[in-house]
Amino acid sequence: MEHDAWPLVLDLAGVFFFAVSGSLMAAQKNFDIVGSLFLGSLTGLGGGVIRDLVLGRFPNAFAEPVYLAPPVAAAVVVFFLLPAVVKLRRTLLLFDAAGLALFCTTGTITALTLGANPISGALLGTTTAIGGGLLRDTVANVRPQLFDRHDIYAVPALLGAGLVAFLWQVGAYTPASGGAVAVVVFALRVLSLRFRWRVPFAAVVAHREGRATPPAD
Amino acid sequence: MEHDAWPLVLDLAGVFFFAVSGSLMAAQKNFDIVGSLFLGSLTGLGGGVIRDLVLGRFPNAFAEPVYLAPPVAAAVVVFFLLPAVVKLRRTLLLFDAAGLALFCTTGTITALTLGANPISGALLGTTTAIGGGLLRDTVANVRPQLFDRHDIYAVPALLGAGLVAFLWQVGAYTPASGGAVAVVVFALRVLSLRFRWRVPFAAVVAHREGRATPPAD
Amino acid sequence: MEHDAWPLVLDLAGVFFFAVSGSLMAAQKNFDIVGSLFLGSLTGLGGGVIRDLVLGRFPNAFAEPVYLAPPVAAAVVVFFLLPAVVKLRRTLLLFDAAGLALFCTTGTITALTLGANPISGALLGTTTAIGGGLLRDTVANVRPQLFDRHDIYAVPALLGAGLVAFLWQVGAYTPASGGAVAVVVFALRVLSLRFRWRVPFAAVVAHREGRATPPAD
Repeated sequence: MEHDAWPLVLDLAGVFFFAVSGSLMAAQKNFDIVGSLFLGSLTGLGGGVIRDLVLGRFPNAFAEPVYLAPPVAAAVVVFFLLPAVVKLRRTLLLFDAAGLALFCTTGTITALTLGANPISGALLGTTTAIGGGLLRDTVANVRPQLFDRHDIYAVPALLGAGLVAFLWQVGAYTPASGGAVAVVVFALRVLSLRFRWRVPFAAVVAHREGRATPPAD
Repeated sequence: MEHDAWPLVLDLAGVFFFAVSGSLMAAQKNFDIVGSLFLGSLTGLGGGVIRDLVLGRFPNAFAEPVYLAPPVAAAVVVFFLLPAVVKLRRTLLLFDAAGLALFCTTGTITALTLGANPISGALLGTTTAIGGGLLRDTVANVRPQLFDRHDIYAVPALLGAGLVAFLWQVGAYTPASGGAVAVVVFALRVLSLRFRWRVPFAAVVAHREGRATPPAD
Repeated sequence: MEHDAWPLVLDLAGVFFFAVSGSLMAAQKNFDIVGSLFLGSLTGLGGGVIRDLVLGRFPNAFAEPVYLAPPVAAAVVVFFLLPAVVKLRRTLLLFDAAGLALFCTTGTITALTLGANPISGALLGTTTAIGGGLLRDTVANVRPQLFDRHDIYAVPALLGAGLVAFLWQVGAYTPASGGAVAVVVFALRVLSLRFRWRVPFAAVVAHREGRATPPAD
């Protein structure tokens, strides 16, 4: 039973972290508490809904009322507990990184459990991890964090999802090894923010035309 | 037969109202008539398509050609009949409110009829009601009306969807009681616009940092 | 076998053309190579994923790893081979037109093969053709090319999808006739760009209020 409960607990934790990042974005954009709840839900549950639609099952977010608890908790936390948080952007990034780490693990496992092959599983895990944040940024009309060239975002998620699929394929996936992958993904993401690890521009032409200073986004 | 036809008639009316709001947005943004037809279709049919995808059935919008009639009618109405309408924004809001009221009712009933439990049904009804408008605003690159803090938008939809699910659960749902719910939702939405009913900000921090005047969006 | 391979080859070519348009957009917006790969994938595969979700099958983009090759190739091409391309916008439009032409054909055939009626098939083909570009523009936060009033975009796709559905219905669809439709769609789109063919505004009111010069978008 404990073996079955772990994925749910981690999945709900991922929903919460992403939902906080959505509710913080709502605060940044001066949305109201309903906007906070909805943008948090979209961020926390959107990636999983896309994964479940691709897998052809009734999405957890709609089927299991327990999935509504994390976004509600996130909106409450952002509303009541963060009046002193000035650096919203930094906090948002940390919560987003925690969601990314958990979802690339749980998303991949969910897809593999439902019969996806390792490559599809890793892709769906990555989609689960990056889908919610992409929906958040698209709906809130901001430059997608996913495409930001100041740091790496999708690379840790792809790496984590691929690692989980590999562990599953060779029979070495356990909650402990999955948790270790999530820790590595979180660490890579946070270190990339701190040390501004980058990947090259999308095109050499863009680099040549590039401004001396990055856009403020 | 009449008992079966009512939901379809109301659903098509909802598609028409939302499609008009989409075509009016297209007029505001200087899109062409094809943009008007597509943005109207996306607004009128998008929420229902998401609902049907979640429910795992072939979406009405693609399966039943009759669902294409309201967006075509909406584009024609906006093109020919509204040259004198100066206050596009106010008209758009009224049509949007009518679509909201009808869709939170018909969307919930559709989900319940297809076997969703009351909570899933209310969530899917709300998704049907707010999905099209959110797609419209996201694609047209404007601040989502859903998150606007000058009035309430999702609260009436949630309330209406929950009420319909409750009536269904206790066996009291009839076309008449469903219609009454839709009228209440429409009234709540319009009154919230007129009297600028609001819900609190997304965060206390946003409130403290808040500007004296709301953003112009 | 060759008969079966043609749709796949054309579909992969369509993915490549749209993916190049996505990666070029990423270069325009100063995204990094990961952003280039993801925006290219979203543009190249997004329309087909929506089509497959509506049709209720496991989307090709996730099921068949071969569909990942064109976006990778597109990102590499944009990164290495285009340093001298100054007129990114014009090149982007040509690749986009090629993707449009191929997808309105292959998307319609895919839907018809899976049992859709002619009208649903034409709609899903059009959705396949315009979905990826709409996702690209929405995520990249630019005015959707689809709604641009300087040229025609959706009309050739609708025409091509309708023509393919008609040919299928009367038993005259062959790879050759399908290819001819794609060529016509491509020609119509490119000619509309060159000669600035337009369709009317979304509303007469917008026309009267219209600015003397079109917006720069």
